[in-house]
Amino acid sequence: MGLTDPRPIGVFDSGVGGLTVLRALRSRFPDESMVYLGDTARVPYGTKSAEVVTRYSLRNAAFLTSQDVKLLVVACNTASSVALPALRASLGIPVVGVIEPGARAAARVSPSGNVGVVGTPGTIASGAYQRALVAERPGIRIQVQACPLFVPLAEEGWVQGDVPRLVAHIYLAPMRQAGIDTLVLGCTHYPLLRGVLAEELGPGVTLVDSADATADEVEALLGRGVAGRAPGGPGALRVYVTDTPDRIPELSARFLGERVERAEHVDIQAG
Amino acid sequence: MGLTDPRPIGVFDSGVGGLTVLRALRSRFPDESMVYLGDTARVPYGTKSAEVVTRYSLRNAAFLTSQDVKLLVVACNTASSVALPALRASLGIPVVGVIEPGARAAARVSPSGNVGVVGTPGTIASGAYQRALVAERPGIRIQVQACPLFVPLAEEGWVQGDVPRLVAHIYLAPMRQAGIDTLVLGCTHYPLLRGVLAEELGPGVTLVDSADATADEVEALLGRGVAGRAPGGPGALRVYVTDTPDRIPELSARFLGERVERAEHVDIQAG
Repeated sequence: MGLTDPRPIGVFDSGVGGLTVLRALRSRFPDESMVYLGDTARVPYGTKSAEVVTRYSLRNAAFLTSQDVKLLVVACNTASSVALPALRASLGIPVVGVIEPGARAAARVSPSGNVGVVGTPGTIASGAYQRALVAERPGIRIQVQACPLFVPLAEEGWVQGDVPRLVAHIYLAPMRQAGIDTLVLGCTHYPLLRGVLAEELGPGVTLVDSADATADEVEALLGRGVAGRAPGGPGALRVYVTDTPDRIPELSARFLGERVERAEHVDIQAG
Repeated sequence: MGLTDPRPIGVFDSGVGGLTVLRALRSRFPDESMVYLGDTARVPYGTKSAEVVTRYSLRNAAFLTSQDVKLLVVACNTASSVALPALRASLGIPVVGVIEPGARAAARVSPSGNVGVVGTPGTIASGAYQRALVAERPGIRIQVQACPLFVPLAEEGWVQGDVPRLVAHIYLAPMRQAGIDTLVLGCTHYPLLRGVLAEELGPGVTLVDSADATADEVEALLGRGVAGRAPGGPGALRVYVTDTPDRIPELSARFLGERVERAEHVDIQAG
């Protein structure tokens, strides 16, 4: 790779949640071209086994490398929690997940070392955040909570009002009792519920969004000589999905903050 | 087929929701052997396109016919709403869905012909219940509502209390205003929320569970010469899932009403 590398950054997720990570990357690196793949035909990964998620992840990565990406961002907590070793072993490009950057940021900002993690059942059960937090800061205290209703709430657009408030109240009760001072949003959908979560936990608790932390790690890699520069203008963006792209304009507006009118359907047979 | 036919009845669903249909079948036909396939590696179907759901359904059916089933029950509203023509065209055995029986029962029991249907976004968007209801009873008035939060509530076991009550209140408000007298539970998960839904709608509204109506249709088919008889004792049950079966004992207790300790994993590559 030369001093600049115009090839795109590849980003995949099980669905549309990873668009919050893409949003952080687009905002931080406006010159970079990016290719996003949402495996919407097989979403969600959070309830599936490690073996199945790894198989899907390898196929997603194969599609993105066929698009000549220079760097792969796994913008899915479930896939990051189980599939990174297999991805790194099989690809010849750098692979960045969302778990380690998020855990690192949380371990760094927590004053007391009493940290909470919310995520899908798959992410929480994998123990990946717990391991990453302990590796960053031995002696850290960790409260975890699987919150399976947060994803449908975010996708339904129910991010304010009584229902998300009540659901957050129930899920976060053990966190409040344990006196956490930092909460890791361990699922890419959860930033949409940030307002409700912040309100529920109060001003003494810092929310850590893995998307920003992941952008930090990508920045470090780009600084080592893979940064691209779009020829006159912002970097291009292509969005692919494995199911029909009908809802992408609406969901991209909500999750990415820019409306993607034309997402392309791609048929990857991932078993 | 002779007067009795000992081959099993095959039942598939995208996941565990179809176990409520299996429950109705087991209760009605205790002598019949049954094979259930839950496509848990690809659940949910409700947010996926007709094309993808049809492809998955054909593979599920191929697995069950390889188990020598005599009759196929599609215990999944989404698959029943889009894949029945393809299944009937490609299989040499009777295929029963859950939509037509449910619509028929609702059209029959509604005094005023003002009927509501709740289901997943995929089922509601397909218009399958609407078409089936109109075919049964021209002039019927139909209120539909997609309720994407009901499935995660049922799987989370949050079937009583403030959260499901509030969610049901929001989803069903247009139904109450329209004065429906009958509500079709157009998703196999929804019978678990029956208590909350009945409370929300009051005693003047009849809830129609497609599982019972589907058992009626199966009964009619079995009466035409395919009924089996287990040799001394209740019919055998085999349960297969495409993801790991770890949660099946717990979920089968809740959805099927009998605890299936040993579900088998089967790897069907369905793209």
